[in-house]
Amino acid sequence: MKLSIIRSACGSLRIHPASPGNRVSGLSRRCQPVGPANSRLTLRTASATSSSGTKPKLTVNFGKHSQKDDGFECDSSLRKVVQSTKEAMLALQRRNPAIQPLLAIIQAGEDDSLLEINKKMAGRIGLNITQICLAKECSEDEIVEEVLKLNEDPRVHGVYLHLPPASLTSRVLNTLKPEKDVDGISDLNIGRLVRGDLSKGFVPPTASAVLDLLEKHDASLEIKTVLLVGGEGPLGLSLQCLIERSGMVVLKSHWSSKSLQRQVMQADAVVLFGAGTMDVSPTWVKPGAAVIRCVPTLETDQHAMSLKSGFGYLTASYRTQNVVRSCSRWLQEQQYQPWHLRSLKLQPLTPVPSDIEISRAQTPKPVHQLADEIGLLPEELEAYGRSKAKVRLSLLDRLHKQPDGKYVLVAGITPTPLGEGKSTVTIGLVQALSAHLKLNSFACLRQPSQGPTFGVKGGAAGGGYAQAIPMEEFNLHLTGDIHAITAANNLLAAAIDARMLHEATQSDKALFNRLVPSVNGVRRFSPIQISRLRRLGINKIDPASLTLEEISTFVRLDLDPSKITWQRVLDTNDRFLRKITVGQASTEKGQARETGFDIAVASEIMAILALADGLEDMKNRLARMVVGTSRSGRPVTAEDLGVSGALAVLMKDAIKPTLMQTLEGTPVFVHAGPFANIAHGNSSVLADKLALKLVGRDGFVVTFSGFGADIGMEKFFNIKCRASGLRPNAVVLVATVRALKMHGGGPNVSAGAPLPKEYIDENLSLVAGGCRSNLRKQIEIAHLFGVPVVVALNVFMTDTQAEINLVCQIAKECGASEAVPCHHWAQGGRGSLELAQAVNEAASRTSNFQFLYNIEMPIVEKIRTIAQKVYGADDIELTPEAKAKIDYYNQQGYGSLPICMAKTHLSLSHMPDKKGVPTGFVLPIRDVRASIGAGFIYPLVGTMSTMPGLPTRPCFYDIDLDPVTEEITGLF
Amino acid sequence: MKLSIIRSACGSLRIHPASPGNRVSGLSRRCQPVGPANSRLTLRTASATSSSGTKPKLTVNFGKHSQKDDGFECDSSLRKVVQSTKEAMLALQRRNPAIQPLLAIIQAGEDDSLLEINKKMAGRIGLNITQICLAKECSEDEIVEEVLKLNEDPRVHGVYLHLPPASLTSRVLNTLKPEKDVDGISDLNIGRLVRGDLSKGFVPPTASAVLDLLEKHDASLEIKTVLLVGGEGPLGLSLQCLIERSGMVVLKSHWSSKSLQRQVMQADAVVLFGAGTMDVSPTWVKPGAAVIRCVPTLETDQHAMSLKSGFGYLTASYRTQNVVRSCSRWLQEQQYQPWHLRSLKLQPLTPVPSDIEISRAQTPKPVHQLADEIGLLPEELEAYGRSKAKVRLSLLDRLHKQPDGKYVLVAGITPTPLGEGKSTVTIGLVQALSAHLKLNSFACLRQPSQGPTFGVKGGAAGGGYAQAIPMEEFNLHLTGDIHAITAANNLLAAAIDARMLHEATQSDKALFNRLVPSVNGVRRFSPIQISRLRRLGINKIDPASLTLEEISTFVRLDLDPSKITWQRVLDTNDRFLRKITVGQASTEKGQARETGFDIAVASEIMAILALADGLEDMKNRLARMVVGTSRSGRPVTAEDLGVSGALAVLMKDAIKPTLMQTLEGTPVFVHAGPFANIAHGNSSVLADKLALKLVGRDGFVVTFSGFGADIGMEKFFNIKCRASGLRPNAVVLVATVRALKMHGGGPNVSAGAPLPKEYIDENLSLVAGGCRSNLRKQIEIAHLFGVPVVVALNVFMTDTQAEINLVCQIAKECGASEAVPCHHWAQGGRGSLELAQAVNEAASRTSNFQFLYNIEMPIVEKIRTIAQKVYGADDIELTPEAKAKIDYYNQQGYGSLPICMAKTHLSLSHMPDKKGVPTGFVLPIRDVRASIGAGFIYPLVGTMSTMPGLPTRPCFYDIDLDPVTEEITGLF
Repeated sequence: MKLSIIRSACGSLRIHPASPGNRVSGLSRRCQPVGPANSRLTLRTASATSSSGTKPKLTVNFGKHSQKDDGFECDSSLRKVVQSTKEAMLALQRRNPAIQPLLAIIQAGEDDSLLEINKKMAGRIGLNITQICLAKECSEDEIVEEVLKLNEDPRVHGVYLHLPPASLTSRVLNTLKPEKDVDGISDLNIGRLVRGDLSKGFVPPTASAVLDLLEKHDASLEIKTVLLVGGEGPLGLSLQCLIERSGMVVLKSHWSSKSLQRQVMQADAVVLFGAGTMDVSPTWVKPGAAVIRCVPTLETDQHAMSLKSGFGYLTASYRTQNVVRSCSRWLQEQQYQPWHLRSLKLQPLTPVPSDIEISRAQTPKPVHQLADEIGLLPEELEAYGRSKAKVRLSLLDRLHKQPDGKYVLVAGITPTPLGEGKSTVTIGLVQALSAHLKLNSFACLRQPSQGPTFGVKGGAAGGGYAQAIPMEEFNLHLTGDIHAITAANNLLAAAIDARMLHEATQSDKALFNRLVPSVNGVRRFSPIQISRLRRLGINKIDPASLTLEEISTFVRLDLDPSKITWQRVLDTNDRFLRKITVGQASTEKGQARETGFDIAVASEIMAILALADGLEDMKNRLARMVVGTSRSGRPVTAEDLGVSGALAVLMKDAIKPTLMQTLEGTPVFVHAGPFANIAHGNSSVLADKLALKLVGRDGFVVTFSGFGADIGMEKFFNIKCRASGLRPNAVVLVATVRALKMHGGGPNVSAGAPLPKEYIDENLSLVAGGCRSNLRKQIEIAHLFGVPVVVALNVFMTDTQAEINLVCQIAKECGASEAVPCHHWAQGGRGSLELAQAVNEAASRTSNFQFLYNIEMPIVEKIRTIAQKVYGADDIELTPEAKAKIDYYNQQGYGSLPICMAKTHLSLSHMPDKKGVPTGFVLPIRDVRASIGAGFIYPLVGTMSTMPGLPTRPCFYDIDLDPVTEEITGLF
Repeated sequence: MKLSIIRSACGSLRIHPASPGNRVSGLSRRCQPVGPANSRLTLRTASATSSSGTKPKLTVNFGKHSQKDDGFECDSSLRKVVQSTKEAMLALQRRNPAIQPLLAIIQAGEDDSLLEINKKMAGRIGLNITQICLAKECSEDEIVEEVLKLNEDPRVHGVYLHLPPASLTSRVLNTLKPEKDVDGISDLNIGRLVRGDLSKGFVPPTASAVLDLLEKHDASLEIKTVLLVGGEGPLGLSLQCLIERSGMVVLKSHWSSKSLQRQVMQADAVVLFGAGTMDVSPTWVKPGAAVIRCVPTLETDQHAMSLKSGFGYLTASYRTQNVVRSCSRWLQEQQYQPWHLRSLKLQPLTPVPSDIEISRAQTPKPVHQLADEIGLLPEELEAYGRSKAKVRLSLLDRLHKQPDGKYVLVAGITPTPLGEGKSTVTIGLVQALSAHLKLNSFACLRQPSQGPTFGVKGGAAGGGYAQAIPMEEFNLHLTGDIHAITAANNLLAAAIDARMLHEATQSDKALFNRLVPSVNGVRRFSPIQISRLRRLGINKIDPASLTLEEISTFVRLDLDPSKITWQRVLDTNDRFLRKITVGQASTEKGQARETGFDIAVASEIMAILALADGLEDMKNRLARMVVGTSRSGRPVTAEDLGVSGALAVLMKDAIKPTLMQTLEGTPVFVHAGPFANIAHGNSSVLADKLALKLVGRDGFVVTFSGFGADIGMEKFFNIKCRASGLRPNAVVLVATVRALKMHGGGPNVSAGAPLPKEYIDENLSLVAGGCRSNLRKQIEIAHLFGVPVVVALNVFMTDTQAEINLVCQIAKECGASEAVPCHHWAQGGRGSLELAQAVNEAASRTSNFQFLYNIEMPIVEKIRTIAQKVYGADDIELTPEAKAKIDYYNQQGYGSLPICMAKTHLSLSHMPDKKGVPTGFVLPIRDVRASIGAGFIYPLVGTMSTMPGLPTRPCFYDIDLDPVTEEITGLF
């Protein structure tokens, strides 16, 4: 047993749990064995002589000394409880070697003998104790404060409020968490016991002790009569319940009752409650009847105390039993458990209303309830309002032994302006899996940029009856992650320009004096500066020891203004910021330079957020980000600028995925949303990892990649899976009849113009053309990685049955494990049941996942492999600029990073208008860039816009807020 | 009674509460009176003949027909309950005319007679009913779903689960909110009853009915014996508790007990539980003894039912009584209640550790607990993590009848580089008021910009032992309000440039076709476009009816690029963005123009957030914002750009103040933080209003103004109080010995250089000089507005007692109500007790608040009044540019807006180096600008920087995150 004594404020003492060395021996000085007179259990069994006046013989005597070395006496009851509790504890510790059940005691004033007994008993069992000693006259507030601390402390499994009855107020009792109320005295636990639900509360130790003695007294007490004298309080009631439930008849009497003697004389057993001065005459007791004295609470009467301490031992042993039980329940709660998910009902309307109307018509479950259903602990959740919450990464530690669920990627055929609905399929699929097939399933989605929400595209929470809700929260600020990225990205940008200005206008000495100022006469490098010195090869820590040359090297990043690659970002479609000149105010002393803003999701920090596997990894990646090159050709990093710690601080909450739900109340993670061209376009590694643990072995995590399978899926496999170490079990490839028709040779469409009739009327040959070209190729790409493919045909109203059948037939001919039509948009999860079953089937096969290229291949070879095997190019062709960059990256040691192609998503080739499966082309590599922090090289095939614009009539014209109902209109 | 029948999903029906017309009459068809045989109450009192075999006489007969027109019989018990419940209900409705207590019934299958009785009884009382009819074979999930909906519905005050016993599972019972569990069957309510706490739960109606009958039977039943037969369940236990508590003795028996007859014969009253087929022989019953049949739950046996419906009436009446009681409790909860604030203990260390160390050492109360302590309802809180939460504005409606607390402003003497500590005083003061004087108090603080956190200044959460915690959350993203402002501000900026581009490159017709597109063949103006048409004087709603000229007027904002006043913003100190050229990419077709970024808190949207008094007001202000001028001189607004609805959507959460706490656990609102020069520098009107309601009549709201009293306080009175209608009770004027010395003629200080000895050693003449100049003047300024002043001397370690005494003495000579030294930085609230007492005293005097100028005075006169009366200038001098702007504003109807001077805060004059009280100067007005949405004119006195820069070694060098503990270092 470890003992720690804590006295709280108001002059009392608090010591935190002692070190392992401080075990029982350290305790024994405090817990002196109570003398023989003190340790008599008060079960007395009367025999013979009936109520005639002879003193009944005590047939059960707990008063004998035992041979135990711990100095107190016990009988078989006590020994049994102690033994079984010890065994339970050992069993617990065998399964969880790190666990140490801990009983916290709050006491007022000095230790008394009852407390000593409890401490001794804990020692006997091997339980740890934390003792909080309050002043004798402590206030209710002080007690409550201590109780709250113990509630929050995950090391504490039970709390014993060893306080005078007057201190055990309603507020105190009900502040204590019921799951730590090992004395079973909170209202909730009393109610549980009375209603007969013992799976959650605790039987009061005193009641257990009485029951034990009763049962011991006569195994066949059934239908016998037990008289409770003076047991009017909750303890009496609890005891009565238990006795009645064990089949005996209970009679009750007041101490003052005139018929007390008569009742005692008739009873088979008598349990006496209350103050020690009262007693029943032994002469009243029926021969063979048991008399039990029950003194559960603190007694100030030391004499009375001494008479009851034997009973105190038994009670204390049951208390320790409850602590071990509590610890065991706590451990069980920490383990993965199958979900009891309450799904939300859908009653789909026809015609399907607008997305915002559907979203608003459904009341999401409170997020803490959803979290509870999927096995998150309250302390792992950080609510942001009522319907979204961040989930702490500590979950990964808690469930690290739990096997992962199945990992399913949703990808698409090459996108067309007609849309495929990948996010809708993702959500429809998990709705079908979770709410209908009752298989634990999580959707992992990207957080959309706010720019398009107000620009052209609208929201990204799915659509129709397959949405993440509330869709307006999904599409707006969410939990602020993109804002955090904007803040971090722009702090770094400001640091770059300010540093260039300061270097341009100050001498080495002035820079050094300012960068390493004397504070109270002492100069010190900050840790981040020492890091930079090390990278520069200067292994000194005393600023005074640097040579002039070293000072110069240290203080001058010497950034080449024409080689700054870091741009500022905003989460707004602001085309006028694509190319700007900054620094034109006179205060910037002529240091103007050309630069630009990207949309926030294009920031390298977003790609880092998506790929990091923890806080430390994220921090390291942020530090490694290269922002430009010095005039001497050396890469300059965020850490060189001294800002990487601040960036990590800005991103510390953004790293936690956000939990939301689908329209049917199944869980969704929304986390990260990097651009799909200059970055890898996938949601975060961490969200997928958390979700895989939460769904458990037989569950599913359905994650999502941007653009067509040639881009989103290829990057998912080669970049994201490489970073995470996760292996996918199946790919769902989304297609639509319309898009297939376009790949099959259908005419172009333009926004605003009426849709050509080919896309409205049945046209089987166009459909077949699209299937045999683009769909086939995308299936083949997935097979390159050894992963089975299920084709999900997202059905539109204009699709004919013949078209649907044709797609499914050809898809299977092309190697898809299965191909099924989906109707989630109109029907919710029920409309995608067939898909869910197909996915369940495909994912249960053995997957032979393999990467497309070895990471150690030369950069050019990696690019060529992707171009040839995935895009179907004959070869690649690099500009001299691209070649020079690759040489530079090799020289800097970046050669073994994976490749993130920046190519149009509208064609398998680099030519957006080439649909189907283009062949006979050479892929031109215009330039090559690198995101060193995120960890990939990105060759540019053509020009990528990283800042969208607003059209003449942006979405925002229709977006409005009702100031009374607070309802939003116009989001879609 | 209003009845609404709701059948839920799975084929059942749901109708929402009926209209008032649909009262009892509409119900009577469904609730046919049960026949005479059905309505016999089953209290039977045996008389004479003892247990000898004669049938006992029924002395209490509930079976007689009453004369009531509602068709059911009742006796005096029933009449009494009905009467008292009706009266309680009327009393409720007299106090709250809008309230209508509502009982929700969840039933499975068809109505039965017990349900009819309950509905009839509700009708009798005038209670509304919502009936949710589930299918007979409904699942637990379905029941739980309905219960959850009722839990959340604030109109429902009680829920009657009229379900078969098998459906009343633990999960169902404990899903029901205990405060709506009018049957008292949840574990918590059972526990409350057993433990004897009836202030919160409910006595089960059946138990009340039995008790009533027992008491009726014999008023002096005390010490008599009541036999409960078959009452083993929780109801029996509850009843037993109640009977015992009323002084009777309870005996219990099984139906199968062999001694049943003997026990019945001895009992003074017998209560029979359980199935209807069992009964005790009347011959067993003792003469005069009562027999009560207790059938609380659904019975399928119609015959049995018919025998017990009289008891059913009485039970139903107690159920309605519980509903009315629940409603009454709910209303009481809605009312203001004095706080029971649990303050957090401080144990100040010497020397005082760093701010972040102090903040981290204190564990904040969970925010929901703090919210509960200060009387917020759970549904008014939107948590953001564990220690901050947004508070819904609906609070203002709920407490609108509650008188406001005292309103105290913290202002300062003219700032010096040495700092005064206004935020520290604000927090120290509320810590003293709340945690020590036990007076409800709120601090209302500004949200700091993140820019300075990483730049020069550091955090703004107070300091030492007077801080808002957790200080890192206070200083970083908080709840995202500034990010929302950034997003809204920049969406508007993007809209401006995009619109200019589109107008420059498209014909009127093309613009019109795009702005008013044909959707499915129909063209329609959006509401925001109709608004614009009205402002243009075009009262048409059919797009086809516009003339070519009207089309041109409508589609062309014709913004003059040189007269755009709207800037972009970032919450980053980025000096290179002060002056930039945008639109230099080829995609912007040569439309480049010069503009700049401000720091986000300088956005007009921030000023609007601070001044708005609700969502509608904010939305209107956002729409009115003027972003520039057309070539014809017309102001162009956000609404003209069609973006005002979207801006309101982006700001919908930002309008809710954020609740945090001080180091001592007292509440703090953090909300809005407009720049103190180009805007008014005060936290939000809404936070102050919410706080004033929450603290209640005897409480205090301490709010904060930026800069010296000549700026922050003047704007607080003339702009903020004018907007809010609130009237201040006192001003706390913060001074330090050091700053006073500088105003008294002490030497200048510069960052990095050692502090001159004047500021370290005692120097009474400098102190006296500062007091008699700047301090006196600032006190006089407050008196101009008729508000009493308490001077708070923020004590530094180097201050001598003589210096402190001197400041206090002169301050009082200068008219301060009181002047006291404060030690909150080193000691927390305890160190500012004297200040708290002085403020309590000053605020209890009558304040004669008056504005400095009448709003209708000409702009120039308003400026002159401020310059002369507040700053002490001889006169003002306007540049021709300023004059022209004033003419323009007058012409546009902006003449009656208040004035927000943009003047240096470092001097009462426009010359920053003039300390003390400068005289003999003429205040130059270089230019005049207007924030029309925020609602003020701001004259520029000199040049204001609205974008700070980063120094050579910004704060961020020391800021770091421990990736394991997640602790932040280096914030201050």
